[in-house]
Amino acid sequence: MLDTQTPPLMIATMAAEARRAAGQLARLSTEQRRAGLRAAADALRAATTEILAANVADMARGQANGLSPALLDRLHLDDQRVAAMADGVATVATLADPVGQVIDTATRPNGLVLTRVRVPIGVIGIIYESRPNVSADAAALCVMSGNAAILRGGSEAVESNAAIHRAFTAGLAAAGVPPQAVQRVATTDRAAVGAMLAAEGAIDMIVPRGGKGLVARVQAEARVPVLAHLDGINHIFVHASADPTMATRIVVNAKMRRTGVCGAMETLLIDTAYPDPLALIEALQAAGCAVRGDERTRALISVAPADDSDWDTEYLDAICSVALVEGLDGALAHIARHSSGHTDAIVAADEAIADRFLAEVDSAIVLWNASTQFADGGEFGLGAEIGIATGRLHARGPVALEGLTTYKWIGRGTGQVRG
Amino acid sequence: MLDTQTPPLMIATMAAEARRAAGQLARLSTEQRRAGLRAAADALRAATTEILAANVADMARGQANGLSPALLDRLHLDDQRVAAMADGVATVATLADPVGQVIDTATRPNGLVLTRVRVPIGVIGIIYESRPNVSADAAALCVMSGNAAILRGGSEAVESNAAIHRAFTAGLAAAGVPPQAVQRVATTDRAAVGAMLAAEGAIDMIVPRGGKGLVARVQAEARVPVLAHLDGINHIFVHASADPTMATRIVVNAKMRRTGVCGAMETLLIDTAYPDPLALIEALQAAGCAVRGDERTRALISVAPADDSDWDTEYLDAICSVALVEGLDGALAHIARHSSGHTDAIVAADEAIADRFLAEVDSAIVLWNASTQFADGGEFGLGAEIGIATGRLHARGPVALEGLTTYKWIGRGTGQVRG
Repeated sequence: MLDTQTPPLMIATMAAEARRAAGQLARLSTEQRRAGLRAAADALRAATTEILAANVADMARGQANGLSPALLDRLHLDDQRVAAMADGVATVATLADPVGQVIDTATRPNGLVLTRVRVPIGVIGIIYESRPNVSADAAALCVMSGNAAILRGGSEAVESNAAIHRAFTAGLAAAGVPPQAVQRVATTDRAAVGAMLAAEGAIDMIVPRGGKGLVARVQAEARVPVLAHLDGINHIFVHASADPTMATRIVVNAKMRRTGVCGAMETLLIDTAYPDPLALIEALQAAGCAVRGDERTRALISVAPADDSDWDTEYLDAICSVALVEGLDGALAHIARHSSGHTDAIVAADEAIADRFLAEVDSAIVLWNASTQFADGGEFGLGAEIGIATGRLHARGPVALEGLTTYKWIGRGTGQVRG
Repeated sequence: MLDTQTPPLMIATMAAEARRAAGQLARLSTEQRRAGLRAAADALRAATTEILAANVADMARGQANGLSPALLDRLHLDDQRVAAMADGVATVATLADPVGQVIDTATRPNGLVLTRVRVPIGVIGIIYESRPNVSADAAALCVMSGNAAILRGGSEAVESNAAIHRAFTAGLAAAGVPPQAVQRVATTDRAAVGAMLAAEGAIDMIVPRGGKGLVARVQAEARVPVLAHLDGINHIFVHASADPTMATRIVVNAKMRRTGVCGAMETLLIDTAYPDPLALIEALQAAGCAVRGDERTRALISVAPADDSDWDTEYLDAICSVALVEGLDGALAHIARHSSGHTDAIVAADEAIADRFLAEVDSAIVLWNASTQFADGGEFGLGAEIGIATGRLHARGPVALEGLTTYKWIGRGTGQVRG
């Protein structure tokens, strides 16, 4: 039984099975992978009763263990949520297939024809917390891109995840897609996470999905490359030239539409030459946002002081730090010092100023005259995202199917030898 | 003085300086970066006397320390080698600039215009051994792609590297390119390498250039992402359908043209249905190659036995392991087990067989009817390479300027907020 193996041996065994399945998956046609996902979606719908029963057990245990209402809400499934999960899988089945895409091709002077072709990465580990839908979402993205997945969900969702995994892989199998392509770590032993993080060469990439604590642990411990973002300390700079109505609308939306998403604005930078900074601050307050200001802000309006740590804090709440800065250069300096490299925006009518901001702010996503809440794979037209990455290698910003591929060089010759 | 700092503090200070310079570099125009490299090439030429004098000192110390003739040859510089180094830098200045290239662009239904644009990675660490020319080659590739470089060469080349670095950065400065963009770790303390490998967040990527011992240490210790290959255990499979003349020419070239390069063939797999296996083996022997065979090979010809370790050995020498395999499936199974994921080739007239090989062999480079010795950025038309990568993320195969970039998402709106 798996549970009697040591975690490293268990993960090695799973990863080897996943690697074999990935090889088979990579040789399936696009239509075969699509059919597998449609069948998985159908199987999830057909298993709604079992999935909800499993979720009832998880919820009962969670309540007994005193999970917070927020955690219980993330854990909770109902008919609509299961249907949405199945719909999500079916939607992934409709996305453009990156596998086999030709990135570029060239004929060398010696006649060798070189082509760079996208291929799956191989084996992707997904480590997540209480949301059971990640089991289906992440598995669907991996299978569509020809990768095998090793799923390790949170212990609080163990029954729900097991039921989802069972239905999903049964669907794959029914459509002739190897069910071993989606592996689930059944044990709730935290050492299994450590074994995944250490599985260099066996797991090609780890995607953590969850809170900052999880991401920080994964980033600190992993020997396997990690695709993630730790923080979304996102700024909006309102330049002197900004249209005041637009600026207010964008700032309020960026902060208050949903405060708990990684694309939410956390710090508002207002140009000292902006005509009406008070209107921005009062609009945030009117929307229910607590404002913490630097000294110059507090000279304008009585708000709580922002201390040094505020500029490096992702509130994920109805709280906003506000600083007045000297023009674009002041904003660039603040952002260079405090941005987490996720999403930063400028509101300005002056296009030359905006272009400098877009060029010089070194973040995964830079926006002009738009809300930071657009930082999302779906909004970017990628269909669905496996996550948002703030690292500088491989993939950056919202990562979807393309980010789950690598490439190989294929050379076709007619007997060429090197001189 | 730098040498009195602890290695981590020294590297942190250098990396911070490099980061600032990278920001300036990224804002220079293509032509300004090209001009900087042309000036660096000129400065190297003008400093030939000093560089050679420094090299004489390194060579004398190397001889006194009993370095091997092969190492001394790598260390040695003369007029031609300095001229070639300068020419190499000038050539990099002519390559297509990846910075600012638009990868793709799309207008979203809400009017937001999204563009993915290539940008430099930031700060690249180069850790290398006795070849002093790497100082100039790697620095040129980094500067052309808008990155700052931190160079850490081998202790045996310390004087040569210092002279090259002095000339190179003086050239940059003369052309208005910040010389801080190319930092050199002056100390020969090996702890400096450890500090570079641990400098997560401060150094964005490490490229080791040197022997397997160096690469293995870097891969084992690094917390910073590493772009490298450890081994080039490259196979050629000669299929039953191969043209015998072509097969012999390719096999001999792949093994014997240069035996010490990472693209050299190490294992020859011959289809049991290939009509004349002896001709292939005898051609290798005639070219001076020692052949080690599996049992089936030794039933045909008296050669040394290949033991289990041979299939996992990169000889980098005039030695070749030979196995007879059962058709394409036999070859695929052998390669899946023993390939290092670098370069593998098939010789076949049967295109369907070749296509299966190209699709199913999971290596960075797969070739049909061509010598594995083409595994090289120059031969691939990339101009010059920083290295060859066998990892699966970011860049794979020969890595040149494009592999030294990442991208950012730029969104241009007209006041869009998310619903």
